[in-house]
Amino acid sequence: MSWIYIIDLFGTCVFAISGVTTAIHKKFDLVGTLVIGFVTAIGGGTIRDILIGSFPVGWMSNRHYLLAILAGYILAYLFKKNVLRFKKSLFLFDTIGIGLFTVLGIEKALSFNLNWEISLILGVISACFGGVLRDVLANEVPLIFRKEIYATACLAGGIVYLVLIQICPWDYIIVPAAILTVSLVRYLSIKYEWQLAFND
Amino acid sequence: MSWIYIIDLFGTCVFAISGVTTAIHKKFDLVGTLVIGFVTAIGGGTIRDILIGSFPVGWMSNRHYLLAILAGYILAYLFKKNVLRFKKSLFLFDTIGIGLFTVLGIEKALSFNLNWEISLILGVISACFGGVLRDVLANEVPLIFRKEIYATACLAGGIVYLVLIQICPWDYIIVPAAILTVSLVRYLSIKYEWQLAFND
Amino acid sequence: MSWIYIIDLFGTCVFAISGVTTAIHKKFDLVGTLVIGFVTAIGGGTIRDILIGSFPVGWMSNRHYLLAILAGYILAYLFKKNVLRFKKSLFLFDTIGIGLFTVLGIEKALSFNLNWEISLILGVISACFGGVLRDVLANEVPLIFRKEIYATACLAGGIVYLVLIQICPWDYIIVPAAILTVSLVRYLSIKYEWQLAFND
Repeated sequence: MSWIYIIDLFGTCVFAISGVTTAIHKKFDLVGTLVIGFVTAIGGGTIRDILIGSFPVGWMSNRHYLLAILAGYILAYLFKKNVLRFKKSLFLFDTIGIGLFTVLGIEKALSFNLNWEISLILGVISACFGGVLRDVLANEVPLIFRKEIYATACLAGGIVYLVLIQICPWDYIIVPAAILTVSLVRYLSIKYEWQLAFND
Repeated sequence: MSWIYIIDLFGTCVFAISGVTTAIHKKFDLVGTLVIGFVTAIGGGTIRDILIGSFPVGWMSNRHYLLAILAGYILAYLFKKNVLRFKKSLFLFDTIGIGLFTVLGIEKALSFNLNWEISLILGVISACFGGVLRDVLANEVPLIFRKEIYATACLAGGIVYLVLIQICPWDYIIVPAAILTVSLVRYLSIKYEWQLAFND
Repeated sequence: MSWIYIIDLFGTCVFAISGVTTAIHKKFDLVGTLVIGFVTAIGGGTIRDILIGSFPVGWMSNRHYLLAILAGYILAYLFKKNVLRFKKSLFLFDTIGIGLFTVLGIEKALSFNLNWEISLILGVISACFGGVLRDVLANEVPLIFRKEIYATACLAGGIVYLVLIQICPWDYIIVPAAILTVSLVRYLSIKYEWQLAFND
């Protein structure tokens, strides 16, 4: 197992925690929270795979993703009362997760001979649309459309990745640099309360 | 036509009735109710086929499914004032329908060489996600996440099916046994008001 | 570039404007409005392509669709204060757009050897489901289910198209006739306030 694969599974698990936590707050039952956790975790990558025509979709290739989601589900219930204590760790993993999901999405799209703009869009979809599906199923306006500079961070990280694979001679720093960009944009946007809305 | 195919069409028709009835209550127009009936009836199987990459998706293979949906649409309008009188029959058909949809979904997934956990998930998706799409389009929180032990019943029936195809020497009782399990779990859950929510 | 392709891009741009405008009213941020514009513009054709198994889906084949969406996005912000002044032009383009999307959807489905009823349904899906996705993401009940004879107009135009390709000897009038039918039904439905709801 490569370290990329391990982060991928970690990201899946954290996404599942975020989905299950949302669903618990909405008073869903045990099955409802599991479904939401599942959809949140695999939704983005699934939409990407469907759009480019890669079947069966990613999470079906082996059992690891299901186990990662199950772990997230159990963790979310175990720590649901003191989830706030772990908020910073969760935020860190989540950010690393969306950074990696963006990169993996772009890589997969490029390997299907799609051009870089389409690949960039597919990278952002991979990272963000799990959360969009979570919010749609929970009957909420998707969070990424309003509050957080989530998609923008993915977009920035994706562009850094696309530029570096063209010009950077050191392969091993490209993915970390892209993930770092996502984290940095997201962190700064929260710290300085950046908003992308027009106010007039 | 095998009896399985006939139940499949029956289930499709009943699912359409459930969708159209929901949409009538939400004051959708004639087209809106038709769309909701259609999506409810074919949604689960369509999502399953897309995820495993079976194209064109199931209901496109012939006209029978469309006719079953049309029949459900007409029936829903004909009996919309005394739908309560038929509630028990509808419930019975609906339960047999989700039982069969679960089994057919698992069978199809297995025939695509997917492992049993994934196949089980795809069976439950086949049976439940038509209703999820119905509720999302009607702008409601999906029913299965909150009120009914719907997905759980499918899960139980699916596990019975997967176990029996391994150990049971009499082929012809496997599908009925799985459907019976779904019906029993669902019936008991309503009778004894089982709930899967944590109350604390 | 054929004139059909040009109208296709025009329709895509107008659909994007409709999505972005909806999203601005819901106070989405710059990324949210872009995503909604994007999904509205390519949603219907994407669902059609996924259902029939045509991958990668249509808008990925080249950059024109992305540019059309980007143009719609910029136009929507430039004219957002006097969008009412352009309402009639937008309505005209939108109607021509859905008419053409219906026809293109049917053509593509027929070219995949699907029968005419399925092709008709896929034509209507191509034209209408971008708007459905827009409304679902904006957490609204889809407009086409309640207010406008939108899908019905597409259905009428689609039937005219299917009849004419069987009986009409002059190829070049078929598509215009279908688009004209869509426009006419939609125009008349608004002028005379047709409604498809049962009132009892």
